[in-house]
Amino acid sequence: MAKLQALQDVANRLRINSIKATQASKSGHPTSCASMAEIMSVLFFDTMRYSLKEPRHPASDRLKYDVVGYSIFNVNTFLLLGKGHSAPILYAAWAEAGLFPVSDLLNLRKIDSDLEGHPTPRLNFVDVATGSLGQGLSVAAGMAVIGKYFDKTDFRTYCLIGDGESAEGSIWEAMAFASHYKLDNLCAIFDINRLGQSEPTSLQHNLDIYEARAKAFGFETIVVDGHDVAALVEAFAKASSTKGRPTAILAKTYKGKGFPDIEDKDNWHGKPLGDKADYVIKHLEGQLKNLSAAIQPFNPVAPEISLKVSLNEPPSYKLGDKIATRQAYGTSLVKLGNTNPRVLAFDGDTKNSTFSETYKKAFPDRYIECFIAEQNLVGVGIGAGCRGRAIPFVSTFAAFFSRAFDQLRMGAISQANIKCVGSHCGVSIGEDGPSQMALEDLAMFRTIPGCNVFYPSDAVSMERATELAAQRKGIDFIRTSRPATPVIYANDTVFEIGKSKVVHNDKVLLIGAGITLHEALKAADQLADQGVNCRVLDPFTIKPIDAAGILENAKACNGKIVVVEDHYPEGGLGEAVAGAISNSTGITMKHLAVREIPRSGPPADLIEKYGIGSNSIISAVKSFA
Amino acid sequence: MAKLQALQDVANRLRINSIKATQASKSGHPTSCASMAEIMSVLFFDTMRYSLKEPRHPASDRLKYDVVGYSIFNVNTFLLLGKGHSAPILYAAWAEAGLFPVSDLLNLRKIDSDLEGHPTPRLNFVDVATGSLGQGLSVAAGMAVIGKYFDKTDFRTYCLIGDGESAEGSIWEAMAFASHYKLDNLCAIFDINRLGQSEPTSLQHNLDIYEARAKAFGFETIVVDGHDVAALVEAFAKASSTKGRPTAILAKTYKGKGFPDIEDKDNWHGKPLGDKADYVIKHLEGQLKNLSAAIQPFNPVAPEISLKVSLNEPPSYKLGDKIATRQAYGTSLVKLGNTNPRVLAFDGDTKNSTFSETYKKAFPDRYIECFIAEQNLVGVGIGAGCRGRAIPFVSTFAAFFSRAFDQLRMGAISQANIKCVGSHCGVSIGEDGPSQMALEDLAMFRTIPGCNVFYPSDAVSMERATELAAQRKGIDFIRTSRPATPVIYANDTVFEIGKSKVVHNDKVLLIGAGITLHEALKAADQLADQGVNCRVLDPFTIKPIDAAGILENAKACNGKIVVVEDHYPEGGLGEAVAGAISNSTGITMKHLAVREIPRSGPPADLIEKYGIGSNSIISAVKSFA
Repeated sequence: MAKLQALQDVANRLRINSIKATQASKSGHPTSCASMAEIMSVLFFDTMRYSLKEPRHPASDRLKYDVVGYSIFNVNTFLLLGKGHSAPILYAAWAEAGLFPVSDLLNLRKIDSDLEGHPTPRLNFVDVATGSLGQGLSVAAGMAVIGKYFDKTDFRTYCLIGDGESAEGSIWEAMAFASHYKLDNLCAIFDINRLGQSEPTSLQHNLDIYEARAKAFGFETIVVDGHDVAALVEAFAKASSTKGRPTAILAKTYKGKGFPDIEDKDNWHGKPLGDKADYVIKHLEGQLKNLSAAIQPFNPVAPEISLKVSLNEPPSYKLGDKIATRQAYGTSLVKLGNTNPRVLAFDGDTKNSTFSETYKKAFPDRYIECFIAEQNLVGVGIGAGCRGRAIPFVSTFAAFFSRAFDQLRMGAISQANIKCVGSHCGVSIGEDGPSQMALEDLAMFRTIPGCNVFYPSDAVSMERATELAAQRKGIDFIRTSRPATPVIYANDTVFEIGKSKVVHNDKVLLIGAGITLHEALKAADQLADQGVNCRVLDPFTIKPIDAAGILENAKACNGKIVVVEDHYPEGGLGEAVAGAISNSTGITMKHLAVREIPRSGPPADLIEKYGIGSNSIISAVKSFA
Repeated sequence: MAKLQALQDVANRLRINSIKATQASKSGHPTSCASMAEIMSVLFFDTMRYSLKEPRHPASDRLKYDVVGYSIFNVNTFLLLGKGHSAPILYAAWAEAGLFPVSDLLNLRKIDSDLEGHPTPRLNFVDVATGSLGQGLSVAAGMAVIGKYFDKTDFRTYCLIGDGESAEGSIWEAMAFASHYKLDNLCAIFDINRLGQSEPTSLQHNLDIYEARAKAFGFETIVVDGHDVAALVEAFAKASSTKGRPTAILAKTYKGKGFPDIEDKDNWHGKPLGDKADYVIKHLEGQLKNLSAAIQPFNPVAPEISLKVSLNEPPSYKLGDKIATRQAYGTSLVKLGNTNPRVLAFDGDTKNSTFSETYKKAFPDRYIECFIAEQNLVGVGIGAGCRGRAIPFVSTFAAFFSRAFDQLRMGAISQANIKCVGSHCGVSIGEDGPSQMALEDLAMFRTIPGCNVFYPSDAVSMERATELAAQRKGIDFIRTSRPATPVIYANDTVFEIGKSKVVHNDKVLLIGAGITLHEALKAADQLADQGVNCRVLDPFTIKPIDAAGILENAKACNGKIVVVEDHYPEGGLGEAVAGAISNSTGITMKHLAVREIPRSGPPADLIEKYGIGSNSIISAVKSFA
């Protein structure tokens, strides 16, 4: 059949172009591309529907590509390439489809080319970056949730997964999630090419085990020869017609397939073919009948939505009333939900602690329970936020976001839009002990490029933090506190990202946030009784830090600062302030933080024991000459 | 049978004492304890062998306890409680065994008691802390590897896993690892009590699915009524006699079992029984025949080993020769292995990039491939390091340690001994692009309490960093660089943790590490030609940072510092220096770091593009007034 021959020709042209591109860049992974050439050919020229004019249309299918690390999302197919290092064949497929000239492929990995070593959304056909393995399927599942339950379009999501990559636990978190939510618009393709980076994978070509695992995790399974285009056409058709569960296509392939003397051989991971390239290209060219394949027509239809959002009514608290910021989070999320139905909440079975449960009670259809699997929780949130289809709020204990640091790191490269809300920070949570206390969360989120780090200290500023985060595109972190703390701001107070507020006046400058802002206020009151006046500053956001405000207020306070935080000394509020003042003279700072691993106990006792309470602040102020 | 009745009585006494302890602390998780009472009774008084005199003997069985979050290691049983929040029943079991008086249980969660909310090694019967879910099984597998392949004793390792917890992908990473290495001395017990924290688990009581998953991941499976002591006795006996594969006991249980009106009911997670306590205790007491059970005798036998270690020969490089620090890592590890056979290397299929392959080639039996599953990689390393049985070196790309941040965070609470070596840091890796570049690793490891952060800048200091890390107990991170850099130290140079070195003299103080130290040296040379002399400082360790050395040298250089790092600005070398100088006057600092998400390109081009190369350093020096 001419069509099948055309698909086979495309596969071999993709191989040839992957070799040429990696020869030009003198680095890259041509053998990882070769094992998936037929899969890419069939996906791009038979299975997926897409339009070159609107590569990111919300109704287009999605392909996530992930072979020993790819991930791409696409056009009317959300294609995610989990094994991102196979980027050259992704680029070759788009060139073959006509999105850009084939000659551009020779700019692979050049400093002024967007055809980077691993795909990023700097390219208009890539929705999320990949290259760190095992993250694609969660993102694809988040996209599939939007398509099935919110957009209700018939687009499909494809995610390519490498066999080495499938050892990542995050894959199995995503598998369990996808079957629980019956994501029949999701298809995972396992490129089982037997060889990892440094040795064969643990399961090699044992397809039976892969199939048993995928079945046990609730997937329809199809075992297929991954180099047989006819079998692949049939497999993808079957996946599309399967209802009520996602499908896993388990493709037996060979690394370096079609490269004589290289196919299925060890020690060829991540290496251009060098002086073997010409021979291999000639060999592949000899198999071409030079037929072309056309892309599948596509007429995008998706509901128009807006992400405009605000609190439907302002905060309404009484000064001095005690309310935990985590509780105000739930209240504020409902207020946002009242103005935009695309505000979605995700949690990892902690909703009755983080107060995302308040949102579930108000809008049960807009809450997605992700169970105890934080990598997938964040990945699903990133997927849901793609292409501007939702404002995802993701909550769990702040400490457990550390489980998803790599997803957040990649989220920044992916230009993701996700709002992370972490409760139970610091020693002020009390009796549950150190395993539940976030004491490094500020440092972690501060390293994420472009991430705003909010640390509101009362219910009024908490509601505004939620609103400010919802209104911008990007990654945000809001740190909420477990204990109830007094309302200190009038309901009409205006808050801005990167702008601090003076909440108490003069002399030495005290800077705290959350529970320690209240300790600073207590200390300031007691010091005032003793005739020592302190100015107290609420930074509101830790990143960006209000450097100008800090410098100005520090100068007005004789250059003396005491910073106090419920966090380890590294990378949090104290070092943010130290960095802000480091290029100025005449300003010195004392830094109070949790300097050992804490233990269980009542919150107030722990705060004093670890030197971040009002007594410690008073001592620090008095010790200033 | 009297023995079975005694085990049932113990189970109910454990329930009663769990209720009493959480009544006294007014917080805690009695219902999570109740579901596992029979399991704990049978483990402690029939299955496990241990001696109260030597709770941490290396030949003792190990129990890791992990029910919706426990983890304990034990006595001659390594018991790990994954579901750490069920700590009260662990403490109650030890009291029942006679390790301490039952009355101590009423001190649960008090600030001066080691009976914390979640177990930590502050208790002599706990080897690793738990409380963050899904980590226990990896640690247990690491212990089992030591027992089976290195100590070659017949101890067994038990890990209790909550059903909610089993949604964590790290569980499935550990399952795959345990079956790959045929760890028949490992038994995982799934406490399937149907209810999570905030709602039923996704699989509820669907035991068939649990069994299919465990089987597919290579475990022998036994489905059992988790409240039937006779069935449990038989199941554990069968597990002990199963060869060639680990066993999963899938126990159907009920949360709050035996508590009338509470058993199997939602909304009872993490709550003491309050005014229902007296009634429930009376009900349970009514079932007691008041029989006691004895612990199983144990005669510890394990090979005596020493962890004394050093390089068997000093570094032997020529000044100016170009060697990548990652390559010197492999060389130094072999030198350590020559003096101690318990130096073990673990990697996640990147051994040909990190150079742990050098060690595998020298000592194939001391290398354990962990495939692409970094959470499990770190967990296994922590387990291997328990009880002083090995010096585990764990390597992967530095960026991918972010996958295991939560394991490292818990590792600190566990007082773990593990050496993490991360390669491919910063933009200086070049063409692979941002997904592969570690630009936040320093910040992450700096937040780990007690962790030393080494950042050697040449092969000589690299070898000494490896040695210094091996010679101390605790968590260490060594950051290695991909490019080859010149040897700058004589082979007999002595290095110390927290001590920097001046490598070039005078005026403005330049501080760099790794690749940026070499850029600083280049800048200093060019500036000297222009008559501007700079002093260049190599900090060697980023944590602890040599605050005294920095202050002293800064003062000698007119208080002017330029810090340059191949890392994001937050939480790395720059903020460490900013923190060190923040309480001094007359010192100002300019900070060069990577301030946007980088892209693919040649290393040298990227270093200049992102403002951390010699030209940027020269500009910064000249801009000082």
